[in-house]
Amino acid sequence: MIKLTIIGSGNVAQHLLVAFRNIVGIEIVNVFARDKNNINHLIENNKIVSDFNDLLTADLFIIAVSDDVIDQVSNQILFTDKLVVHTSGGVSIDVLNNKNRKGVFYPLQSFTKSRAVSFSEIPICIEANNENDYLILKNLAELLSKKVYKINSAQRKSLHISAVFVNNFVNHLYKIGNDICNENEVDFDILKPLILETANKIMTISPHDAQTGPAKRNDSTVINSQLDFLSNHNQKEIYKILTHSIQQNGKEL
Amino acid sequence: MIKLTIIGSGNVAQHLLVAFRNIVGIEIVNVFARDKNNINHLIENNKIVSDFNDLLTADLFIIAVSDDVIDQVSNQILFTDKLVVHTSGGVSIDVLNNKNRKGVFYPLQSFTKSRAVSFSEIPICIEANNENDYLILKNLAELLSKKVYKINSAQRKSLHISAVFVNNFVNHLYKIGNDICNENEVDFDILKPLILETANKIMTISPHDAQTGPAKRNDSTVINSQLDFLSNHNQKEIYKILTHSIQQNGKEL
Repeated sequence: MIKLTIIGSGNVAQHLLVAFRNIVGIEIVNVFARDKNNINHLIENNKIVSDFNDLLTADLFIIAVSDDVIDQVSNQILFTDKLVVHTSGGVSIDVLNNKNRKGVFYPLQSFTKSRAVSFSEIPICIEANNENDYLILKNLAELLSKKVYKINSAQRKSLHISAVFVNNFVNHLYKIGNDICNENEVDFDILKPLILETANKIMTISPHDAQTGPAKRNDSTVINSQLDFLSNHNQKEIYKILTHSIQQNGKEL
Repeated sequence: MIKLTIIGSGNVAQHLLVAFRNIVGIEIVNVFARDKNNINHLIENNKIVSDFNDLLTADLFIIAVSDDVIDQVSNQILFTDKLVVHTSGGVSIDVLNNKNRKGVFYPLQSFTKSRAVSFSEIPICIEANNENDYLILKNLAELLSKKVYKINSAQRKSLHISAVFVNNFVNHLYKIGNDICNENEVDFDILKPLILETANKIMTISPHDAQTGPAKRNDSTVINSQLDFLSNHNQKEIYKILTHSIQQNGKEL
């Protein structure tokens, strides 16, 4: 039995709580939430605390809060020599306070409150400062997910940046596609099967091999015609820089 | 029974041939291929022709060739008053020769020779110059797909450009994510569930509402830290322009 406490009541905290609370072998001791109303639909009220002095002891404290307050939250835990982990992609293990043993438990997924997720397919990247703590986190992660990876802080930072490209920036390109459709009175739904196929294709083919389109073919007639069609300055600049980047990649070979 | 001939032997021609050949109510009269070896694994040899003089008559000629030769191919069809369509997203219906009735039959999907596709989910965008021809194409499209749209040439061009953003450019962002992983000795597979979730999310949530990340949050600490981490000039420039674009979109509201 592992006794754990979650500190935080936002998106990641809520998804972790929902995932953990039904697993045999895990006992949720407390959830720390400044505002109990954020989380009292997910756990018994008497387990929610809003003052660090009220936290009971536990084997593991999972800090799921904004990147910029992880260090101060870790300072406020009054226990010592417990395993304290954060859940952030972009923050080093080193920001955690030295009075406890340190670790990272980073589920790499885009969490939305309104969408349920199946944790079994979510990669969990773990890091610890000693082998014993690493094994504790690995065992815990394997209770949730089939995909558990040992990732150090520098690797995790690179993953987090890659995630910005393949998630945040990709979504913004979907947004631009949607805008162009709206401007031309075309139903964006027409593009949805293409969007799914584009993502599915690279499950089995490398993105390098999957690249198609006018930039890849160096088809300057189509490229110039499409640039002429775009009236939005911002869309034009993004079109140019990504076309140029695809063409440069072709030359590297 | 509709008698049709496919002109071309590339990716789109092959996928259309495979889709059409098993449908009751469709007879493939000929396939035109400069090199019979491109296509003779998919159709009886005696139906393949390499000289326009050898084409038999048909109700419908589908020109599935490169954009820049659609007009000259349509000139070389020796019949008149047949329905002749092309399959291109970016080319106007007007480039087809006037001696035949004109149309467009544009399946909006990214075709790869090595990947089978299920046509039933592929949107087919059709256009014709009169209602009767439109109905012929609509009936034909509905034999293949549940998703048939009436789209004029200007709308189709905007769709084609949107497709460049959501398919070609998105794939290039996957490539950059893959490159960053490789540079930092991280397994790109870790990002694949996130890539799928990013695409799946916008099936039900608009890309505007689905946007997350440091740019959306105006989190300049994370943005600057990630820019510092990137050593590749090209990756930095793309990061900057897409971050700026997401931030500008936020301000429009």
